[in-house]
Amino acid sequence: MARLNVHSERPYNAEPPLDRLRAHYRTAADHFYVRSHGDLPEIDASTWRLSVDGAVAMPFNLSLADLRARFPEATVTATMQCAGNRRADMRTVAPVSGDPWDAGAIGTADWTGVRLGDVLRAAGVTPGADLHVAFESHDVVDGRPYGVSIPLAKALADETLLAFAMNGAPLLPEHGFPARVVVPGFAGVRSPKWLRRITVQDNPSDNPMQADDYKLFPPDVTAETADPAKGHTIETMPLNAAICEPPRGARITAGETTVRGYAIAGDRAVVRVDVSGDGGRSWRQATLDHEADAPFAWTFWEIVLDLPPGEHELTVRAWDSAGQTQPAQPDDTWNFKGYLSASWHRVRVEVA
Amino acid sequence: MARLNVHSERPYNAEPPLDRLRAHYRTAADHFYVRSHGDLPEIDASTWRLSVDGAVAMPFNLSLADLRARFPEATVTATMQCAGNRRADMRTVAPVSGDPWDAGAIGTADWTGVRLGDVLRAAGVTPGADLHVAFESHDVVDGRPYGVSIPLAKALADETLLAFAMNGAPLLPEHGFPARVVVPGFAGVRSPKWLRRITVQDNPSDNPMQADDYKLFPPDVTAETADPAKGHTIETMPLNAAICEPPRGARITAGETTVRGYAIAGDRAVVRVDVSGDGGRSWRQATLDHEADAPFAWTFWEIVLDLPPGEHELTVRAWDSAGQTQPAQPDDTWNFKGYLSASWHRVRVEVA
Repeated sequence: MARLNVHSERPYNAEPPLDRLRAHYRTAADHFYVRSHGDLPEIDASTWRLSVDGAVAMPFNLSLADLRARFPEATVTATMQCAGNRRADMRTVAPVSGDPWDAGAIGTADWTGVRLGDVLRAAGVTPGADLHVAFESHDVVDGRPYGVSIPLAKALADETLLAFAMNGAPLLPEHGFPARVVVPGFAGVRSPKWLRRITVQDNPSDNPMQADDYKLFPPDVTAETADPAKGHTIETMPLNAAICEPPRGARITAGETTVRGYAIAGDRAVVRVDVSGDGGRSWRQATLDHEADAPFAWTFWEIVLDLPPGEHELTVRAWDSAGQTQPAQPDDTWNFKGYLSASWHRVRVEVA
Repeated sequence: MARLNVHSERPYNAEPPLDRLRAHYRTAADHFYVRSHGDLPEIDASTWRLSVDGAVAMPFNLSLADLRARFPEATVTATMQCAGNRRADMRTVAPVSGDPWDAGAIGTADWTGVRLGDVLRAAGVTPGADLHVAFESHDVVDGRPYGVSIPLAKALADETLLAFAMNGAPLLPEHGFPARVVVPGFAGVRSPKWLRRITVQDNPSDNPMQADDYKLFPPDVTAETADPAKGHTIETMPLNAAICEPPRGARITAGETTVRGYAIAGDRAVVRVDVSGDGGRSWRQATLDHEADAPFAWTFWEIVLDLPPGEHELTVRAWDSAGQTQPAQPDDTWNFKGYLSASWHRVRVEVA
């Protein structure tokens, strides 16, 4: 864990340096950002059980061995990211609450487990119904078990997993051992770790994590005036891009410099990445690298810029398959919780 | 047709004044924008035939009566918009080609016909295959029939229609009588009017309308340097919003003023609309009005602003269900073809 930059020890919140993040398309488990809301629960996999209940015809309670035996194994390559990724950039506008994540609260892995849809169908859920799938976990936040929910349609989607493994190895304790939910495209908060219960129900979870937190508010709303019922529940994440190399403040030799980073478009594809060596006054297009058959995984990009001596602001913006692009200024997406920081990523460097 | 602002008589291109556009959620057919690429074809519905061929097990050739008899009727409420909608705003940055559409190259209707998917399945198409559905029409552009294509998955989607009627009446000649394609969420160019042939094939259409035009290029590309193979094929349209009332340059009495407009998010939902009376320095949230069960239809919005005397820039921006918002400046989406103009819509008014 010494490889991560730690924002907080209790709860443990940490992210990798950006050059390490960009080193491999699949992020090593011990380089993967960790976002916790409580202490790390200690779970004995041999006695761990998962209960499935609520609006299902056949509720059940299964061990890890039962789950593995009853349902076919499935692997999905998907990116996970925190709703607060890049929050630090918003602090240039005005204070925001929460840890000041740089652009490293994101990572991509092969997640292996069983399809959540297979589990729910075996329990006799009614597909197509306007229902919600609530999760409850072993970690405790403010005296209550961690809990969130997702719409049934997303729970039944092919990409949504109950995962036991990450990049071919059992989940590390901090990533949810022995089992977590993986909801590709959605903010990490909807992919609970250390899962213990799944409940199909009429309404979203009333757990504060779902009902109060992780809501997007307008810029004029403050902690004092925020009405959670009026905030937008953060699920699918917006288009975003970041420069991972060179790092902020780098001193670079004049001439050709390779600039690298990632881009991601929620449930869409990244179709173009523009990179600027002059703060957005002119743009060139980066080369894109995207895993086939992984619609919910990030796109790596790379470009060689020829930088003359002087101070420069490197800038990146992505475009998605709907021809949509990112806003330019941190102020354009600012909100007091610091969620969904998704304006052009800017890195100042000095070239000599 | 005198009710529309005409950009060009041949081909006939025209859009409604914005206050008329905002008057009804469903746009009357004679207030609906018209985008033509050639002369209006004259078609006798009694002899009109549609052929379905290519990679299908059972090609066929049907009359209008055959189509109505063989397939169940379907109605979809959907918004249609031109890829060049709001192009005029880009001209404040630098010249662009094409008609200078204001924000009226958009409209919403109940489209009635048969599902394109039903027709293709009856012809024995292979669902799930990586195929394209090419359309050819009776209008002629530069000596060739108008032709485009869409991916098979979108052609088979529930919302995609072969439409005979608009708001309960047969299509008007300028809207594609007797039959057109309606591809909700996609740019209007992919919804050909005056249809005559459907071909299922391995590749996108090689018609210039598909292969060369309606591509999104980066801002540094010009007519001279553009390589169509490298442009992004415009299909799903980006998040957008416009102020329809008051009009640009309006003189308003100080005090409460109602501001109204539309917003649209391609294949996503509009979750919030921010309106500013001071050019984007402060924002308030508009009331939203969206038809139930019409995921591909626009959202109407309205807000009462209290405007003091002086010159003001009214500004609107929308947010979609992925928490994504629009860029602020016309320069942020500028391209030499003037497509996908989707920055904050701005209307200057004078209050006395």
